[in-house]
Amino acid sequence: MAKAITKRSEDYSKWYTDICLRAKLADYAPVKGCMVIRPNGYAIWENMRGALDVMFRETGHRNAYFPLFIPESFMKREAEHVEGFAPECAVVTHGGGKLLEEKLYVRPTSETIIWHMYKKWINSYRDLPLLYNQWANIVRWEMRTRLFLRTTEFLWQEGHTAHATEAEAREETLRMLDVYRRFAEEWMAMPVICGKKTENEKFAGAVDTYSIEAMMQDKRALQAGTSHYLGQNFARAFDVQFQNQEGRLEYVYATSWGVSTRLIGGLIMTHSDDNGLVVPPKLAPTQAVIVPIWRDGPQRSAALAAADRVRAALAGVSLDIDARDNVTPGWKFNEHEVNGVPVRIEIGPRDVEQDQVVVVRRDTGEKSSLPTAAAGEAVPRLLDDIQAALFARAKALLDDNSFPVDSYDEFKAKIDDPGGFLYAHWCGGDECEKKIAEETKATIRSIPLDAPEEGGACLVCGKPSTCRVPLARAY
Amino acid sequence: MAKAITKRSEDYSKWYTDICLRAKLADYAPVKGCMVIRPNGYAIWENMRGALDVMFRETGHRNAYFPLFIPESFMKREAEHVEGFAPECAVVTHGGGKLLEEKLYVRPTSETIIWHMYKKWINSYRDLPLLYNQWANIVRWEMRTRLFLRTTEFLWQEGHTAHATEAEAREETLRMLDVYRRFAEEWMAMPVICGKKTENEKFAGAVDTYSIEAMMQDKRALQAGTSHYLGQNFARAFDVQFQNQEGRLEYVYATSWGVSTRLIGGLIMTHSDDNGLVVPPKLAPTQAVIVPIWRDGPQRSAALAAADRVRAALAGVSLDIDARDNVTPGWKFNEHEVNGVPVRIEIGPRDVEQDQVVVVRRDTGEKSSLPTAAAGEAVPRLLDDIQAALFARAKALLDDNSFPVDSYDEFKAKIDDPGGFLYAHWCGGDECEKKIAEETKATIRSIPLDAPEEGGACLVCGKPSTCRVPLARAY
Repeated sequence: MAKAITKRSEDYSKWYTDICLRAKLADYAPVKGCMVIRPNGYAIWENMRGALDVMFRETGHRNAYFPLFIPESFMKREAEHVEGFAPECAVVTHGGGKLLEEKLYVRPTSETIIWHMYKKWINSYRDLPLLYNQWANIVRWEMRTRLFLRTTEFLWQEGHTAHATEAEAREETLRMLDVYRRFAEEWMAMPVICGKKTENEKFAGAVDTYSIEAMMQDKRALQAGTSHYLGQNFARAFDVQFQNQEGRLEYVYATSWGVSTRLIGGLIMTHSDDNGLVVPPKLAPTQAVIVPIWRDGPQRSAALAAADRVRAALAGVSLDIDARDNVTPGWKFNEHEVNGVPVRIEIGPRDVEQDQVVVVRRDTGEKSSLPTAAAGEAVPRLLDDIQAALFARAKALLDDNSFPVDSYDEFKAKIDDPGGFLYAHWCGGDECEKKIAEETKATIRSIPLDAPEEGGACLVCGKPSTCRVPLARAY
Repeated sequence: MAKAITKRSEDYSKWYTDICLRAKLADYAPVKGCMVIRPNGYAIWENMRGALDVMFRETGHRNAYFPLFIPESFMKREAEHVEGFAPECAVVTHGGGKLLEEKLYVRPTSETIIWHMYKKWINSYRDLPLLYNQWANIVRWEMRTRLFLRTTEFLWQEGHTAHATEAEAREETLRMLDVYRRFAEEWMAMPVICGKKTENEKFAGAVDTYSIEAMMQDKRALQAGTSHYLGQNFARAFDVQFQNQEGRLEYVYATSWGVSTRLIGGLIMTHSDDNGLVVPPKLAPTQAVIVPIWRDGPQRSAALAAADRVRAALAGVSLDIDARDNVTPGWKFNEHEVNGVPVRIEIGPRDVEQDQVVVVRRDTGEKSSLPTAAAGEAVPRLLDDIQAALFARAKALLDDNSFPVDSYDEFKAKIDDPGGFLYAHWCGGDECEKKIAEETKATIRSIPLDAPEEGGACLVCGKPSTCRVPLARAY
């Protein structure tokens, strides 16, 4: 038996890494800060990509592919953008055995190269909107890395849209934020807070950045997706003008938005337990595994025949039959538990006799028997139940660990223990925000879109504030 | 109206580029030799990926993702490999604002980094086979580039498998070659020749390289996919041994195989015509487009209602209704023709009256009327017919332009005109192969797997040969 997974209560961070490695989701690559996404992890990413792609298509977007390399001069066109990104870029200086005339940056995000192309493609209002998305790899030179959560290379999607009006671009920004919210909640079973980032925390080159923020089991925050209203910043930097309906030239309005393989880290930390990975059924590569159990040849073929019947009844379920001969049923149970398969279906000799199966939930460990004929209806329903239960559990964690604080002393006392999302009044000032971050390592996660209006006084300076913002330690 | 596409007979190479640009498949990127894959082109790539992924899964493979960057020292481990690939690599020397201790190569192919990881994952015969594939971007510094056919960055899939025996690895190599053949013929409607590459032309680091070779409309050859038996070369270079069933340590046997966005170039050059792109229906992002035609309001709503009825009857077909108000029907016809939509369905006022639709084939231009009620059956059948007709036409081109030649003089006379695949005897010697290439720019495409045994004399040196090999100018 492989070695046990560290308990969350012992060492949360080691628990997380143990899950990544033991469930074979990822492994460390030989290049500093990079990871290998193993098939178990990549299959989750493929399911995420599939679900998001449908949502992107439904909102009118099309996929394209832009180059990996960005000329240095492009990066420098938008002042805030280059300041934010250039220091963390990987730089290609040689190609084909020769020193390059101009350095190439490995894309840390693609606004610059995409807006260079948009200049070629946009002339008139008739060419707008352009609603493009790309799935790609990204490189940002990170100092402190963790599998999935922060890696030098990661996979993501980046939407880049061009619009004729500010109103339309702002609407798009919030539409895609809501797509991310729905994906997080309905597919990942991970409740999130939608809000606007502070000036300090916004994307380099954006007018406004919005994010979805989730709470992990250690009560720290995870920024899980961002959507940016870029105004005309990139259009000005790359001189992208269009002729509007009145015949006048105007700069194009832009948005960009992205989620990455970081979501896999969020999924792990939202649902998994001390026994291993837990995956919401809607994203599970294998939703149910049948483990036939036997002691001799006739029992073996009877169990396999029963397994085949169950499989036939579960056509819509992504299902495996684990008929391996060289490992014990107990070993199989453990492996599928570590790997987070939502439902295990056991069929032993007694079950065959009684024409029943034993069904075990991964999330609760709950075991029940049911007639073989009922499996076709019961298992899909059970998968729905698990999906809903995982969301409810995560929502309860978020709700139970979100609370108001009204003084900086109280805040400092509670940010360590109990931790969580501490809702406080903030004046909107840069200095107060930085003071909190420096002194407590907590950050303002966002100004929630649905924050109720409430008069109050800033936690730090006492100046007036009109709503509370969630503060937390974050990944 | 946009400017016309250059005719094939005028300038074949310009015709190809015109199609890429006019059908909005790709555009030139600002980085030398790189391309942007536009939505129309990327959608074809997504369909190719989807079809191949199913075939890979059916043959037991799983997708994973390995890092973009390869440490310089890894490249140097396999002597032939580094010699073949290092000169065409892009090299990262700086990261995070600092000079790197070890240079990183942007992957030109991933054998080295993958076999480094395989060493961690393979211990015993029980861990074998490992059947992994990845979809990724690749960089090779090319001097002469052409959209899709040869670009500095391209997208591809690369399978990397590890086996306990040579026999199994060789079987895998040929299995995947046959997957490529089936994909080319059944999906791309592009007939290919399966064969083994000569020593000169094999992959740097392989024991044997196999390829599928297709004939383009200008009768030049396109290598469209390769499958390599790597023997124990990479296992030795990365010290990957496994304990076999007898308990002895042995080096692992390897294969790798790949196809790339080059296939899109092959697809364009196999089927398209002077009016634009032609896409086989099985890979067409839009299989049929309905163009409703009207002169006034009541005609408009009647035509749209009829279009909706046809759409409802064609649930299995990927279908668009082009109801744009701001362009004429003629403009729409032209655009869909340039874009290669296999079937156009016109519904004009008279068609509405007579409860019929006009169906136009993209491949032949053939036009026919049919009752609206018949569309549900007729259109899918028509798509099948077009798929078959495209293959038959391409097969005829290949057959009609493949012929034996028996002397070097005849060869030199015919390689320019008529051109095509010239089947000749070859002694197997390196010198004769190189002499032909230098003097005629034609290369031995492969030693076909199904070449009939036939005694003969080498085209160049007259030494005995046992079969004919196809020689051609190639992309």
